[in-house]
Amino acid sequence: MRISLLGGTGDIGGGLALRWAYDTHHEVVIGSRDPERARTKAEEYETELASRDVDRKVTGFANEMAADRGDVVVLAVPPYHVADLVETVADVLEDTILVSPAVGMSRDEAGLHYNPPDVGSVTQLVEAVAPDDVPVVGAYHNLSADRLANLDLEIDLDTVLVGDDLDAKEQISQLTAGIDGLRPLDGGGLANAPEVEGITPLLVNLGAFNDDLHDVGVKFQ
Amino acid sequence: MRISLLGGTGDIGGGLALRWAYDTHHEVVIGSRDPERARTKAEEYETELASRDVDRKVTGFANEMAADRGDVVVLAVPPYHVADLVETVADVLEDTILVSPAVGMSRDEAGLHYNPPDVGSVTQLVEAVAPDDVPVVGAYHNLSADRLANLDLEIDLDTVLVGDDLDAKEQISQLTAGIDGLRPLDGGGLANAPEVEGITPLLVNLGAFNDDLHDVGVKFQ
Repeated sequence: MRISLLGGTGDIGGGLALRWAYDTHHEVVIGSRDPERARTKAEEYETELASRDVDRKVTGFANEMAADRGDVVVLAVPPYHVADLVETVADVLEDTILVSPAVGMSRDEAGLHYNPPDVGSVTQLVEAVAPDDVPVVGAYHNLSADRLANLDLEIDLDTVLVGDDLDAKEQISQLTAGIDGLRPLDGGGLANAPEVEGITPLLVNLGAFNDDLHDVGVKFQ
Repeated sequence: MRISLLGGTGDIGGGLALRWAYDTHHEVVIGSRDPERARTKAEEYETELASRDVDRKVTGFANEMAADRGDVVVLAVPPYHVADLVETVADVLEDTILVSPAVGMSRDEAGLHYNPPDVGSVTQLVEAVAPDDVPVVGAYHNLSADRLANLDLEIDLDTVLVGDDLDAKEQISQLTAGIDGLRPLDGGGLANAPEVEGITPLLVNLGAFNDDLHDVGVKFQ
């Protein structure tokens, strides 16, 4: 399967790209608004993998071209860019599953708070702006980009998937299970996305208020 | 320390009562609107503990009398009763820490959803209606009552505490750590309560959509 990570040059996109390239045989494509930056990052990931004796081809393209190539397209951009990005690539999403990991948050003096768009969640916003025949799955909201990107770290974490298209959700579940130590759980339909996204600001708060919980993730047990 | 669990005749109140009585030497008091029911439940807990060779006195009273006796008062009642209950016992809360574990939820065809009161969370509602000099700590929102109440089960779970009174939060943290396998984490101030409470409907959804995740809890790692 070919996975295109739009916004794959940093943060959660980069972390997922490295893990999929390291742990699976799926083809990993990096997208960016700036194709040169996408190519540079793709080469950096290849170098990182080569330093661990993993010979993998990672390619980089402008977002629209990366989206065109993907069987799965991960919208790994900040929440306020997600809707525009979906509209930019909408014409090339045939037979594609869209995956939304972004979370809207705001900060006050107490800490970070969940601050979703009016439709209830960023995941549901993606569903609202995506072409009708493109299934949307929410996933990877609560993962630390830094932990994913550091291949020295073993992870033992859960990620909750939400989606109304059961076949698409199952495909993303299998893709997720390909990453060592990452367990996909079914959170039900897209309407359940807010409770999943809402964990992310809590994780940041826990990192701020507790020793040794920086970059923390979640496990349901 | 004397812990009074209002609504300690069932669900999360009963679970916490049993664990504190089993794992610690704190005095456990059960409160109920019906004092006879509180006494009956207290005796049931004593019998359960005695069957495990733990000789502990658990007492039962009407909520107001139980609140009067407690150094810590846990409001283990459904969310729509919490404000009324606080008003009922407000006059007897001198030198008391109030603990709020309740979560407002609603159900639709997709699953359970977080449905807090207008002030943002049940924990903040307690703060709004409690006397000014009574510190409020949010805790125990994401714990399965059935798992707590089954003393055969070892637990290995986290619970996130929120509160603006740091001394009160620290006392509840120590009380929490007295329960074997339960780790208290600091979630910051009361304004951070919504993200903590919001996990509870997610846990119910995970139990509904995944095998072997019934009565699941959460661990941050």
